[in-house]
Amino acid sequence: MGSIDLGPFPMVDGFEEASALDEADPLRPFADRFVPTEPDLIYLDGNSLGRLPVSTVSRVHDVVDREWRDRLIRSWPERWWNLADEIGSQIAPLIGAQPGEVIVADSTSVVLFKLTLAALQARPGRSRIVTDDLNFPTDAYVTVAAANLAGGREVVTGRSADGIDGAEDAIITSLDEDTALLTLSHVAFKSGYQYDMARLTSAAHDVGALVLWDLSHSVGVVPVDLGGAEADLAVGCTYKYLNGGPGSPAFLYVSTRIDAEVDNPLSGWWGHVQPFAFDLEYTPAASIRRFQTGTMPILSLSAVETGVALTTEAGIDNLRTKSIGLSEFFIEQSEVHLEPLGFSVASPRDAARRGSHVSLRHVDGWRIVRAMIERGKVIPDFREPDNLRFGFAPLYTSYTDLHTAIIRIKVLMAAGLPNSYPQTRTSVT
Amino acid sequence: MGSIDLGPFPMVDGFEEASALDEADPLRPFADRFVPTEPDLIYLDGNSLGRLPVSTVSRVHDVVDREWRDRLIRSWPERWWNLADEIGSQIAPLIGAQPGEVIVADSTSVVLFKLTLAALQARPGRSRIVTDDLNFPTDAYVTVAAANLAGGREVVTGRSADGIDGAEDAIITSLDEDTALLTLSHVAFKSGYQYDMARLTSAAHDVGALVLWDLSHSVGVVPVDLGGAEADLAVGCTYKYLNGGPGSPAFLYVSTRIDAEVDNPLSGWWGHVQPFAFDLEYTPAASIRRFQTGTMPILSLSAVETGVALTTEAGIDNLRTKSIGLSEFFIEQSEVHLEPLGFSVASPRDAARRGSHVSLRHVDGWRIVRAMIERGKVIPDFREPDNLRFGFAPLYTSYTDLHTAIIRIKVLMAAGLPNSYPQTRTSVT
Repeated sequence: MGSIDLGPFPMVDGFEEASALDEADPLRPFADRFVPTEPDLIYLDGNSLGRLPVSTVSRVHDVVDREWRDRLIRSWPERWWNLADEIGSQIAPLIGAQPGEVIVADSTSVVLFKLTLAALQARPGRSRIVTDDLNFPTDAYVTVAAANLAGGREVVTGRSADGIDGAEDAIITSLDEDTALLTLSHVAFKSGYQYDMARLTSAAHDVGALVLWDLSHSVGVVPVDLGGAEADLAVGCTYKYLNGGPGSPAFLYVSTRIDAEVDNPLSGWWGHVQPFAFDLEYTPAASIRRFQTGTMPILSLSAVETGVALTTEAGIDNLRTKSIGLSEFFIEQSEVHLEPLGFSVASPRDAARRGSHVSLRHVDGWRIVRAMIERGKVIPDFREPDNLRFGFAPLYTSYTDLHTAIIRIKVLMAAGLPNSYPQTRTSVT
Repeated sequence: MGSIDLGPFPMVDGFEEASALDEADPLRPFADRFVPTEPDLIYLDGNSLGRLPVSTVSRVHDVVDREWRDRLIRSWPERWWNLADEIGSQIAPLIGAQPGEVIVADSTSVVLFKLTLAALQARPGRSRIVTDDLNFPTDAYVTVAAANLAGGREVVTGRSADGIDGAEDAIITSLDEDTALLTLSHVAFKSGYQYDMARLTSAAHDVGALVLWDLSHSVGVVPVDLGGAEADLAVGCTYKYLNGGPGSPAFLYVSTRIDAEVDNPLSGWWGHVQPFAFDLEYTPAASIRRFQTGTMPILSLSAVETGVALTTEAGIDNLRTKSIGLSEFFIEQSEVHLEPLGFSVASPRDAARRGSHVSLRHVDGWRIVRAMIERGKVIPDFREPDNLRFGFAPLYTSYTDLHTAIIRIKVLMAAGLPNSYPQTRTSVT
């Protein structure tokens, strides 16, 4: 089945406004810092996998063709050995951390496991872990896995039925003197809900619990102030808004305030104070380095550096300003063009309560997403049961992209969804 | 300090023999399947980091410039989602495993942690773990970490003072009805000692213990028969003889014989039966897939595929034959040229007891390695306290390489080691 005719589009409501917003956008030149995709494709899934920066192409080439090919093992002392620390220090100012508090390591799931278990071991007398049903599922699995290993703690999962304010109140109510850890996603992966980090951290500290924040959906688009909130622990993903490439390694944060209280439960040679002494006894490095475990995947790690550098250069406050502009515009335009077609906005209307993606709900959500990708040249993503998730990456998403995407959805809906599409998801993503 | 004059070398003993062996080598054409390094460099550290295959250059380019740039998230179902399983199936025949028994995941340290803990949980009533002092240090750290989490098992570390036969006997003696797990490196990282996998596995099974083999220093150069030995669990590294690139992810093996007995203690979304259902309850995949945890680093993972393919194409038995030829020749030549200069062979003389690297000991080991790298254009590596480790990668190492390296060492020793070199290691590798 071929694509439908997508243009030229009529000058419908909003087009001129989008053009004017693009004209006035100080970050507009950053779009050219990414390698173009196929023509006319509108990519609204930078919250799942960020696009390819131009600088990353030459960086990967250099890693493969000089550092690996030519320098071989000499690249360990020359370049690779401290790379995870250096990128950690580069990420630190984006999340309100000090340079020595952040390091890149493993996958997000594995660093979550390490820090969750470390926190539980630091609160041995307490039997409860508080989280919520907005958390990313792997966070839930890892929390249970760590709880099982730390003497079987009870995991209390709050319900978010009453929206973000209700969820926040419910969490605070469920904290008690028996709570070891509060573990939450700062911005929820499905709805884009954004928690008040300072308020929740303070409430957890009031009962003596530690707090672990998953920043995967906020780092790079929402200014995070871990230091200001006195947050204890955090992890985050580098392949979304930081444009580190598919499956690029995660980062972890341990506050210097609680540094002395926590150890890496998954001790390996990359966290040893002197890895090349090959001592059979483990002695942890004195720095954040001790939260490393095994050898880092250098090709994937190297691409993180150039991705993060673009975010740093654009400035996190500028990115947030544009991100809010994009999501406000998208919601406005959705109300005009899509609500009459059965779509509803599932993300908070209050920008302060929202990350950089917006979910629309529609009973035919899965079929619409498939039609958009296959026939409309628009890529959003889909999250069960009926969420169409649109991510706005302020480094490369334009207002015109959003307007065009919405009009294409309108055209697709007018053309009708193919009967051949199943009602429910059949493929892996 | 500049290089010393390295050539042309006199036609000393062994040169003609090396040339003749190269002429007769059926694997010789494989050297051209690697991108050349700097001219005249002799690289004898493929046991630490394998060289760059020509096919990997285009593979990485394709991952970055088409799969990431152009296909973006569509590459997950199209290419990336099953890649770790596919490469696992490609590795399986190299280690005597069935296709569904092997998968690529995490770093070697992290997969060791998962399988060690899984084994201990499968033997809850037993309090001892047996290993040896030849094991790679990270294996020791991870074993202790897992033991701490599994109710504090005692780790019994055998001493190898009596060589490989003595070590093997000591291990068998220390196995008892209270032993949960025997965990060993198949080929020892420092000496190149190779254990009798079938004998030790059988001895462990006799007392009801499980066995975990670290194949990092044997996979790709020594035919491994996990199935024939009825081994339970194994892990291995892909960046050494499999040429997967710096820090490329590890693999793990779980025998179908014990499949029902072991679970992944580090459960994450990549091991879920339906990861994109985003269910808050963890339900493991029915396959080896359940030993996955987080998202794989795709750039690094992709390079493993082309690396492994070269090994498969050359044939593991051919590689072993040449590996033995190389190490025998190197030992012979060392005896002729280097023993008179104070070097001694620290690896077993019996080829059946040896992996694909040979360690020489010398009281000035660290200074000699430094001189070789900086002045002699020969790269071996150094392992404390006095081991010069020479790795032979039969895909690209030639007999002439070995002869030339030995003569260069002889020339360097004749010129004298610079007084400016410290007696002990000062840098990280």
